[in-house]
Amino acid sequence: MTGKLPRLEVCLSPALLHLFDTKGAVVVIIDVFRATSTIAAALHNGAKCIIPVASVPECIELGNSIDNAITAGERDGKVAEGLAYGNSPSEYPREFVDGRTVVLTTTNGTRLLHMVEGADTIITGSFLNLTAVCDFLLAQGKNVLLGCAAWKDRFNMEDTLFAGAVVNRLAAHFDINCDSARAANQLYISSGGSNFIKFLEDSSHYRRLSGFGLVSDMEYCTTPDLHPVVPILKGRELIIHS
Amino acid sequence: MTGKLPRLEVCLSPALLHLFDTKGAVVVIIDVFRATSTIAAALHNGAKCIIPVASVPECIELGNSIDNAITAGERDGKVAEGLAYGNSPSEYPREFVDGRTVVLTTTNGTRLLHMVEGADTIITGSFLNLTAVCDFLLAQGKNVLLGCAAWKDRFNMEDTLFAGAVVNRLAAHFDINCDSARAANQLYISSGGSNFIKFLEDSSHYRRLSGFGLVSDMEYCTTPDLHPVVPILKGRELIIHS
Repeated sequence: MTGKLPRLEVCLSPALLHLFDTKGAVVVIIDVFRATSTIAAALHNGAKCIIPVASVPECIELGNSIDNAITAGERDGKVAEGLAYGNSPSEYPREFVDGRTVVLTTTNGTRLLHMVEGADTIITGSFLNLTAVCDFLLAQGKNVLLGCAAWKDRFNMEDTLFAGAVVNRLAAHFDINCDSARAANQLYISSGGSNFIKFLEDSSHYRRLSGFGLVSDMEYCTTPDLHPVVPILKGRELIIHS
Repeated sequence: MTGKLPRLEVCLSPALLHLFDTKGAVVVIIDVFRATSTIAAALHNGAKCIIPVASVPECIELGNSIDNAITAGERDGKVAEGLAYGNSPSEYPREFVDGRTVVLTTTNGTRLLHMVEGADTIITGSFLNLTAVCDFLLAQGKNVLLGCAAWKDRFNMEDTLFAGAVVNRLAAHFDINCDSARAANQLYISSGGSNFIKFLEDSSHYRRLSGFGLVSDMEYCTTPDLHPVVPILKGRELIIHS
């Protein structure tokens, strides 16, 4: 590529999304704990596709209309009432999910995904597919917005830390004039670039989820590159980019 | 103090203010470059009071109605058209400002100040009055929200860095369960706790203001405790807390 580098920015909360121009950009939806981790795991383990939906009733209705579908989702960190499965990547091993459609609704991640307008491409990112996401962004050479799902619009540490990992890897190839991106990168550097779970131990989400006995789930979600796929939105479905 | 510690939170942008409960809290308005730095300097140098206003016309009208008032303010980093003075602390030495009222409007800081609802107390903070602000917050023992003015609702590094300096000093005395506060503190730690301007050299606001020849202004604004006063809002006026 010659000339001007594409832009790389970080949006720290869905409530700030309107400040960014997503037209023609690649938008990465980030919900480390746990929607986008679950999406990477389920697709890598053979799920036919993931259909992210906004509400629990929509999830149930759509799930009923698709053969052999799995209805999944959480509200406030727990399996939502009326749905069969939750939002943990460990719930989606190959023997369970292979060839099936997962209809998924979550508190933050799926909501943000539906808010993005005019993007060229929407993909999902998590530590589980960090390198795959970075390679994809590099290959596209387009403007990028890393969109943190946050927690009910509140800034959160884990999504920002992941955004920082991406910024850190791609800094030389993009024009970065965005303090959110700089701060995310700084947090990533502060974390030492490994043992992310240790860095997150004092975060709000860690405290909340560890109260539900989900420490091993969070350890899983912060392990880089266990599920090296790029989930990409095609119509209403997230499928593996190939 | 016995029992439960008061809460300390950080709001990274005015666009996120609605997520925080400011009722009964002490809210610190932070606009390091440069409204709250200018406010600290002008009051410490003898200004009778600062009246923050939302618009340039309001600034002119109010300035005309007050004897010997100074109309001041910026839009996009420059003196706003129709106003006599700008938003640089260096414009307000004692020989100029002593005993006078400053009517001030700025892009971000004064706007945020008017957005806060139901607070017990509103003060302004900047590196110029860092220790004074921390001492005040400690003495009050109430819930605290550190409100970053940001740049047109976009997260910025300098206000967050200042918030982190406050979090770092007060951490033992408050209950902190807010990832924004943790991240701000982490950025402060990354900065080494001194030479803030060096840490900010790559930030968006530094780039913008240095383009206007304002590097020495930013160096001034990042020097701790040059103006050790606590500007506190009483009615429509910011005066020195005594």
